[in-house]
Amino acid sequence: MTGKFYGLGVGPGDPKLLTIRAVEILRSVPVVAVPKSSTDKNSIALEIANPYLPGPVEILELNLPMTTDPAVLERCWQAAAERVLDHLRIGSDVAFLTLGDPSLYSTYQFVLQKLRAICPELEVETVPGITSFAASAAVLNQPLASGEEPLLILPAVDNRLGAYIEEFPNLVLMKVSRGLESIVQTLNYYQKQGVLVSRCGSQQQSVVRDLNSLVGKGVDYLSLVLVNGNATNTSVGREKEDAE
Amino acid sequence: MTGKFYGLGVGPGDPKLLTIRAVEILRSVPVVAVPKSSTDKNSIALEIANPYLPGPVEILELNLPMTTDPAVLERCWQAAAERVLDHLRIGSDVAFLTLGDPSLYSTYQFVLQKLRAICPELEVETVPGITSFAASAAVLNQPLASGEEPLLILPAVDNRLGAYIEEFPNLVLMKVSRGLESIVQTLNYYQKQGVLVSRCGSQQQSVVRDLNSLVGKGVDYLSLVLVNGNATNTSVGREKEDAE
Repeated sequence: MTGKFYGLGVGPGDPKLLTIRAVEILRSVPVVAVPKSSTDKNSIALEIANPYLPGPVEILELNLPMTTDPAVLERCWQAAAERVLDHLRIGSDVAFLTLGDPSLYSTYQFVLQKLRAICPELEVETVPGITSFAASAAVLNQPLASGEEPLLILPAVDNRLGAYIEEFPNLVLMKVSRGLESIVQTLNYYQKQGVLVSRCGSQQQSVVRDLNSLVGKGVDYLSLVLVNGNATNTSVGREKEDAE
Repeated sequence: MTGKFYGLGVGPGDPKLLTIRAVEILRSVPVVAVPKSSTDKNSIALEIANPYLPGPVEILELNLPMTTDPAVLERCWQAAAERVLDHLRIGSDVAFLTLGDPSLYSTYQFVLQKLRAICPELEVETVPGITSFAASAAVLNQPLASGEEPLLILPAVDNRLGAYIEEFPNLVLMKVSRGLESIVQTLNYYQKQGVLVSRCGSQQQSVVRDLNSLVGKGVDYLSLVLVNGNATNTSVGREKEDAE
């Protein structure tokens, strides 16, 4: 009589980018689990999913802080898994929400591992979500990669960025709010164009093509930079963008 | 009085992986454009979108052959753009369907460029789709990449694969039906585990973990191989997989 565990990708910001399957599940589960770091005021994933919740749903806030301390992480993943299991064990299905896609840079995978360790027979369904980079490229009406070109996704600033830029003309640089200055310098050095997209699909969405204008200013932590080897950065498709 | 041009990602196979926005558009447009190579019997993208078409919709089959001849490609993209424009010019909105996501390896981008060259003021909306690799990782309930790990997406077999494998533990190898033998040899040499997923989300979906068993046999052209540096390839989440 164990409930089913769902990992739902809710996309990067626009509720209309949820899938039919994710909406179907949101309308049926009694418990929705949302990862929450201590600094979050509200869960962005929950805000995105909110239009589809049928009303009387239990929201399970899981404390999953943004830290790199492995001991703290292990403890929090374990505690989150145990809280989810409390509901699964009484037969309630639980949907764990993740921004973007649950297979990319999501704590869902770690909580799932802990759940499986305790309860190997657990029924699990992972529902993929629209990634922030696919949504950002769509807003810009530009390709991420074409033909036989590779695409390299880098979730953090890395001192190897210069080497990567030379080898891979198409790059997705995620979580660029830390280290943006270094990214801009490197792009300038290699004469590469990047476009910054923040809070893609939300009310606060912004697009910045002149990355030099950002140096010394803070950018939202939900920001990425797309580098497209073939991009002309012309006016194609600007109608969906905000003022820059 | 020009119609609006939509680029719709329909995901890799399961109609339930369309987004709410894509379905909204499919239910409203009078013309649906589908890329068709001469070898296709039916358009897979159209099959995926079909449950949402309201009935009397004009299907515009665009001849977009799978060739690398630039002269042929240029001519076909131009012809496709002109056929789409015939409808846009009389005020009909047109939705161009793409398998997976329209920003990744899609002819949509080339047709869009041609359209923009003829009609710079055209109103365009690109709707992102679930990628085949996100959907495949979801079926396997495994991450594509975690924490600060890069993810490299390679759309074709490349003689640099060995070098990439050493540098990037997480790889997505797309369109692996050509050159699978070479991929398997390279993965074996570097003692890396890969999982092949074919026709993800469709009735014909299959998952193969023993890639050596495929050598000498053909695999479906809609197949990819996921290599996850941290994957244990245990029994986690096999319930959604087909017989292997």
